[in-house]
Amino acid sequence: MRMSTLFAPTLKEAPGEAKAPSHQLLLRAAFVRQVVAGVYTFLPLGLRTLRKIEDIVREEMDAAGAQEIRMPAIVPSEPWKVTGRWQAYGDDMFKLRDRHDREMGLGPTHEEVVTPMFAAETESYRDLPRNLYQIQWKYRDEPRPRSGLIRAREFLMKDAYSFDRDEHALKASYDAMVHAYERIMTRCGLDYRKVEADPGLIGGDASHEFMAPASVGEDLFVHCDSCDFAANVEAAPIGEPDLPAPEDAAALEVVHTPDRPTIRDVAQFLGVGEERLLKTMVYEVDGEPILVLVPGDRDVSESKLSKALAPSDVRPLDDAGFARAGLAKGYVGPQGNDALHVVADHRVRGRANWVAGANRADHHATGVNEGRDFTVDRYADVAVVEDGDRCPRCSGRLVVGRGIEVGHCFQLGTRYSAPLKTTFVDEDGTERPFVMGCYGIGLSRIVASVAEQHNDERGLLWPRAVAPYDAVVVCANMDQPEVVAAAERVYDAATAAGIETLLDDRRVSAGVKFADADLIGMPVQVVVGKRGVARGVVEVRARRGGDTLEPALDDAATAVADVVRAAP
Amino acid sequence: MRMSTLFAPTLKEAPGEAKAPSHQLLLRAAFVRQVVAGVYTFLPLGLRTLRKIEDIVREEMDAAGAQEIRMPAIVPSEPWKVTGRWQAYGDDMFKLRDRHDREMGLGPTHEEVVTPMFAAETESYRDLPRNLYQIQWKYRDEPRPRSGLIRAREFLMKDAYSFDRDEHALKASYDAMVHAYERIMTRCGLDYRKVEADPGLIGGDASHEFMAPASVGEDLFVHCDSCDFAANVEAAPIGEPDLPAPEDAAALEVVHTPDRPTIRDVAQFLGVGEERLLKTMVYEVDGEPILVLVPGDRDVSESKLSKALAPSDVRPLDDAGFARAGLAKGYVGPQGNDALHVVADHRVRGRANWVAGANRADHHATGVNEGRDFTVDRYADVAVVEDGDRCPRCSGRLVVGRGIEVGHCFQLGTRYSAPLKTTFVDEDGTERPFVMGCYGIGLSRIVASVAEQHNDERGLLWPRAVAPYDAVVVCANMDQPEVVAAAERVYDAATAAGIETLLDDRRVSAGVKFADADLIGMPVQVVVGKRGVARGVVEVRARRGGDTLEPALDDAATAVADVVRAAP
Repeated sequence: MRMSTLFAPTLKEAPGEAKAPSHQLLLRAAFVRQVVAGVYTFLPLGLRTLRKIEDIVREEMDAAGAQEIRMPAIVPSEPWKVTGRWQAYGDDMFKLRDRHDREMGLGPTHEEVVTPMFAAETESYRDLPRNLYQIQWKYRDEPRPRSGLIRAREFLMKDAYSFDRDEHALKASYDAMVHAYERIMTRCGLDYRKVEADPGLIGGDASHEFMAPASVGEDLFVHCDSCDFAANVEAAPIGEPDLPAPEDAAALEVVHTPDRPTIRDVAQFLGVGEERLLKTMVYEVDGEPILVLVPGDRDVSESKLSKALAPSDVRPLDDAGFARAGLAKGYVGPQGNDALHVVADHRVRGRANWVAGANRADHHATGVNEGRDFTVDRYADVAVVEDGDRCPRCSGRLVVGRGIEVGHCFQLGTRYSAPLKTTFVDEDGTERPFVMGCYGIGLSRIVASVAEQHNDERGLLWPRAVAPYDAVVVCANMDQPEVVAAAERVYDAATAAGIETLLDDRRVSAGVKFADADLIGMPVQVVVGKRGVARGVVEVRARRGGDTLEPALDDAATAVADVVRAAP
Repeated sequence: MRMSTLFAPTLKEAPGEAKAPSHQLLLRAAFVRQVVAGVYTFLPLGLRTLRKIEDIVREEMDAAGAQEIRMPAIVPSEPWKVTGRWQAYGDDMFKLRDRHDREMGLGPTHEEVVTPMFAAETESYRDLPRNLYQIQWKYRDEPRPRSGLIRAREFLMKDAYSFDRDEHALKASYDAMVHAYERIMTRCGLDYRKVEADPGLIGGDASHEFMAPASVGEDLFVHCDSCDFAANVEAAPIGEPDLPAPEDAAALEVVHTPDRPTIRDVAQFLGVGEERLLKTMVYEVDGEPILVLVPGDRDVSESKLSKALAPSDVRPLDDAGFARAGLAKGYVGPQGNDALHVVADHRVRGRANWVAGANRADHHATGVNEGRDFTVDRYADVAVVEDGDRCPRCSGRLVVGRGIEVGHCFQLGTRYSAPLKTTFVDEDGTERPFVMGCYGIGLSRIVASVAEQHNDERGLLWPRAVAPYDAVVVCANMDQPEVVAAAERVYDAATAAGIETLLDDRRVSAGVKFADADLIGMPVQVVVGKRGVARGVVEVRARRGGDTLEPALDDAATAVADVVRAAP
């Protein structure tokens, strides 16, 4: 492709609203342009990268035995109301009415379409397992679209849905998808972590996220510094801590602590560390208040608390609940509340002399001790993980990182098949709901994630598998016919050798061409200039690392092919 | 691919609502399933055919120098309001509001997105010409979606937009697209006609439609029986007719014709042919009523009338206009209306003794003669074409046919670039609006059109280029291990030879397999059965024509490859 005709209007400066490096670079390198907030046009270079990712995803999905279909983007509301997601998504889902006033939506995922369709065509366990996937532009009306392609309102997604007889078979389907995802991420050149995750709005049992570590990522996850454990911070279990050194129990005393609304204020006032305060949260569990205790320097993970108390319904107690229970909001302590069920995090165990709320406004109690002053009904892992916590799998320590979620695998079980009343006839003649999994990859988000991980101060550094082109031939002197002829020869020879090549034949300065070649970031650059041509050589340079060869003109295509093949 | 795992649930009977043959067959052969009216899921077989068409379109567009981009499907309303199409499309366009109450639409075509985007990046005539295209699912809220993929509400379209300096350059861009379209239609195996068309809502000057002749088609077009002229009936010019034989002028008489509301009634009552009645229509042209005369057996083509009177604004006179002008609606004749401008179709010329309205209710005049009783200000070609009319290009006769519009090329000129105020700096330093063309192909509609043209009483007959697979190997005796082994060998060998092959290894009867093979319509069928295997042979049959070979088992793959290559 000749850059004199390629529609690739590069920019010297990124628009001010672009903050994330990938967003700035994808705009500057003419990969995308914004139409409205969170809605982008892919220009020719961006679309080539997106399509290469699409091809990788399709190959690996097919290799894993999944079959491609294509469902509509406009979906009827009825099945979404049956599963409860019409309400649950709320404004996040684009909704419209057709000319006959029928409610429709733009599908953010497609469980409600694929499940009834598959069930209508499938009667028997003999037709299982199946895995159907699609690669489709999807829609979510994000409250704050940002970081370019990382959180967009229209985005390309691969969504797959597996149908199995039972949980055991589901696990095999799930494992095949997780394995395919690992291959996809690796082939796209992404540094990634497979983390245990919270299923969230999609629902279901087990779930893994694929995170691309990046400083602009919006998701926090932890990983172990010595084993391969990794988890989303919302869901991360923590290894049990060592018991603290024993301490003599002091007498319980009540202290006046006016105008000290935060734990930090109280800790400073009393001259103790925040970890010595007993944070006492009140939740409503199946309609009854319970106390949840964590050290003052920790937060309660509602995700982990819900899991620990499942299948009970867990929610923070509201003000009316505090009033009903006669609890002093902000000053609750476990002592004297023996009628309430008490759950404590493992980090509360064995520590003496807590500072806790005194169950009256503006007062705290010191010397609060388990056994003497309060009783814990159950210890559980309910605190939010922090950097340095113990790994739940080994003796290593957990490290908190930031990442972009590029994939997600869910074991749905019967979360959708049961409410949608979709069943098959099992071997024993009984009707059972399908046991499902679902599996998503954000393809346009991978474009941004690769750009986020692979760039330097001059521009992008595409891994070869997802680079729009393998190489760019820069003709440095357009006014010298022999240089132009040499550049054309190298371009033709490289193209004939199967190298996807750009020829920069624009009538602009060599400096502009070098800067654009670095910015756009093809893996290999070939410079054809008058001094080299006079000596019968060209310069072949790897964009990453900068290693340079100087082959003879006649050998240029072979050298380019070698450097392209060696590129990561 | 093994049919035991392929998700291809064929149906014995099509659902009752499917009337068009392609709709019935695409449902029965498990190519598509309806989700809601006019909205379909493509199943694995259907998606493979769609993707093959997509590849053909992409190859030909790239070969013609167009560059692929991908614009969003959700588009802001503002530029659509500037061009007037937000109103003009009305309910045909899906419209929605985002969470910030901003009006958005689902783009039915993308002039309003591509034009400002291209203009923002393009300053000079040196950057022209350019042609940008996309292959995208598009949305139109059809009042009556029908015939399956032929008139759907979500459909896959290729839309291209050319940008040129001037009309001369536009014609070159346009011709390149028309040529690419001819190649695309041919490669897809479509019988098609390139017809002159009316630009309609898209606007602009010249336009061609690509029609796939089919009895279920909703578009009428004419083509010449002796030259290559073809045109949409709305737009088709007609060659001038021979003058009728001279006739003596009779005296003008007024006849009472009560309770005879139609031309046919009056003609029968008076015992003359309908062609002897002078149909006198009244239009409002730039605010003034005019009379338009055609023979009683013809209709006025408003498209041709508008073209003949351009740039005037032409619309039918409303009831208030009849009252203001003192005209007796339904009984207007040209005689005595000398104050009004009169346009007559060429077929009115030279004929004597018309029957016309007598300009009072329930009365007609006979013996109405041009020259004596009325004057024609202008003769023009304003009647709707009919079967047997003279070709405007040669002495041939026009034949009316029915077709499916599968492509459309428009010379837009400055229809969009001018209102959107998008300009470039021309060589002489002046700012000019871009001169544009736009070019659409309905890819999902081509799937249906090919199916409509290529089928027989047993099922589909895919041309090889767009068949989901090249061949199907039918294992006729699944209970015979040596037959299964032979079928697997043929399947493996054909696949290894690069033939896209299905293996029907389902545990169903041979009869069901033969019926499904005919229904799905792969070009080549290979039957592996016990009698053949006992003799060391298999049967290789062309789906179209039924020619059959009986190669030895070892030569089966070669024979399959030969028959596949020979398939149309």
